[in-house]
Amino acid sequence: MGLLENTVSRIQPLDREAMRAARARQDALTKPPGSLGRLEELSIQIAGIRRRARPEVTRKVIFVMAADHGVVAQGVTAYPQAVTAQMVANFAAGGAAISVLARHVGARVIVVDMGVAGEIVGCDGLVSRKVGYGTRDLSCGPAMSRDEARRAVETGIDVFESELERGLDLAATGDMGIGNTTASAAIVAAMTGRPPASVAGRGTGVDDAGFARKIAVIETALACNQPDSSDAMDVLSKVGGFEIGGLAGVIIGAAANRIPVVVDGVISGAAALIAAGLAPQAKDFLIAGHLSTEPGHGYALAQLGLAPLLDLGMRLGEGTGAALAMGVVEAAVRTLNEMATFDEAGVSGALEDR
Amino acid sequence: MGLLENTVSRIQPLDREAMRAARARQDALTKPPGSLGRLEELSIQIAGIRRRARPEVTRKVIFVMAADHGVVAQGVTAYPQAVTAQMVANFAAGGAAISVLARHVGARVIVVDMGVAGEIVGCDGLVSRKVGYGTRDLSCGPAMSRDEARRAVETGIDVFESELERGLDLAATGDMGIGNTTASAAIVAAMTGRPPASVAGRGTGVDDAGFARKIAVIETALACNQPDSSDAMDVLSKVGGFEIGGLAGVIIGAAANRIPVVVDGVISGAAALIAAGLAPQAKDFLIAGHLSTEPGHGYALAQLGLAPLLDLGMRLGEGTGAALAMGVVEAAVRTLNEMATFDEAGVSGALEDR
Repeated sequence: MGLLENTVSRIQPLDREAMRAARARQDALTKPPGSLGRLEELSIQIAGIRRRARPEVTRKVIFVMAADHGVVAQGVTAYPQAVTAQMVANFAAGGAAISVLARHVGARVIVVDMGVAGEIVGCDGLVSRKVGYGTRDLSCGPAMSRDEARRAVETGIDVFESELERGLDLAATGDMGIGNTTASAAIVAAMTGRPPASVAGRGTGVDDAGFARKIAVIETALACNQPDSSDAMDVLSKVGGFEIGGLAGVIIGAAANRIPVVVDGVISGAAALIAAGLAPQAKDFLIAGHLSTEPGHGYALAQLGLAPLLDLGMRLGEGTGAALAMGVVEAAVRTLNEMATFDEAGVSGALEDR
Repeated sequence: MGLLENTVSRIQPLDREAMRAARARQDALTKPPGSLGRLEELSIQIAGIRRRARPEVTRKVIFVMAADHGVVAQGVTAYPQAVTAQMVANFAAGGAAISVLARHVGARVIVVDMGVAGEIVGCDGLVSRKVGYGTRDLSCGPAMSRDEARRAVETGIDVFESELERGLDLAATGDMGIGNTTASAAIVAAMTGRPPASVAGRGTGVDDAGFARKIAVIETALACNQPDSSDAMDVLSKVGGFEIGGLAGVIIGAAANRIPVVVDGVISGAAALIAAGLAPQAKDFLIAGHLSTEPGHGYALAQLGLAPLLDLGMRLGEGTGAALAMGVVEAAVRTLNEMATFDEAGVSGALEDR
């Protein structure tokens, strides 16, 4: 049994007893029961994940995985491939959106080179775990071998577990990879059965001609590669990306270690579909951070049975939506932990209860 | 000219030049233009409010105003009137939801007794600015005199300006007052022309019989008092509350001093309708923090032309939704200020731009 199978086998259901205790505490806190809405639901989910009626969420880690995509040769992107490596350097220098938002919510960012096309030098803190130097062009054959797909997922598990040792209560997923909305839309189309034209979006802002090419490329990729939606590793290898596989591994690693994972936009959503295909029980550990304007994201979340926390018209990736949502998740857990009960505060209960 | 008229006359339009500069900077930052969605819009609005292309948002203050309501005699609430004062003590002790969420986003909470029915003793930090000891029952006559209504609004302005002197970049509104969803629904119905049955909600969770009474009470109050929707002070005095008037004053004070205000749920929404009635230009300074599940809130926001930032199924009041939203607003401004530009980071621009 390999690392993947071993990790998947460790995923256990949520702890119903801890969830019952958290619900009971929520109902005793100085507020009308249910009046904190999704904050209450989040706190109870996390109680079930962490097996504690009053879980702590302080150490927050955003896993930003980067890789390149051979499909950029088809002219499906608004930015050149070199931007992937340049943005990785920007992450390391602290100048990217995710750098700022991570500082804002008090999370550390782990940037992982899962398969950027060139060598990235002089980037402090970059974790280099290349599975390859960019994928092959998925429009005319598989993006990677099945072995590479498996290595990407297992690398994600390994990176997650290394960070867990450094201290980690709440994880989030983020991505960087010019061309990766094409791969993600192909995964969402393959896993949901929806036509590429309804799933694809403009990514970083491709023009009309490029958008038409993007849809045609995804249609060709699915027709040519025939990914098998019942075999997530097959889908990942044929139309995925190294960073998408890595993020699927992060999700599986988090679920096995009972850590909640906040999922970002459409790339992370595609990774979550792959993770759920490999380990359906992992879904219970997911929190949908936000709803991206990329149409595939909403379909991915619907397939996963997740309702997004935020809807701010964002479509940047990098984990930006998930980072903002981490602040809300921490707030939810803090209300559960830190609010006074009616008894403690000497506040009268509801009239009908007396 | 009194304090109110003087303050209203100081409200100036947003600074279009600062907004243009902020937009230009957003378009130069290392992300596809527009990809941060509402974060970009927020940062530009705040640039216009603060008259600076790169405004700072660090000192955050939540104004929580409390008062009692004579209409509780009609059996329209799930909790007894004593809870207003008890919850004020809970705010001061740091055990309420707003206490926890304010700590989480790094805001200070100013709790103001605008008209709680009894004396509150032994509450450190409570600002006592009573306009009265609870309003009269609005179902059978005006809740307060026109003079009291004016004093409530001017007290709000005064409290705001005192806090401004202590340092304040971003304000939020919150409330406490058993019975105040009844007053707020009456204000929303009066100001929007919508029928009470479509505007009223269950507040803290009144039962079916109480909810039916609540709707009937609002219908009676509007028929009996005949508030004039073109005269916001008339509406406030006839069907409002002291804390609602105070919050309207906070909003007007913030607008006059060019401070953005994050508006909480239905009580704050009713206060914003009153503020906008007294000073239509104040609307530009508002940010709708969230959408409450109280039906009147959505109608109030629509009338004000505001789209809520968050939608988390919350209905607690106290400023809880606004507090969470403050974190998002600060994040928006931080991305504008702290992200690197394409030039600074050495990242290639879009292909079509070259």
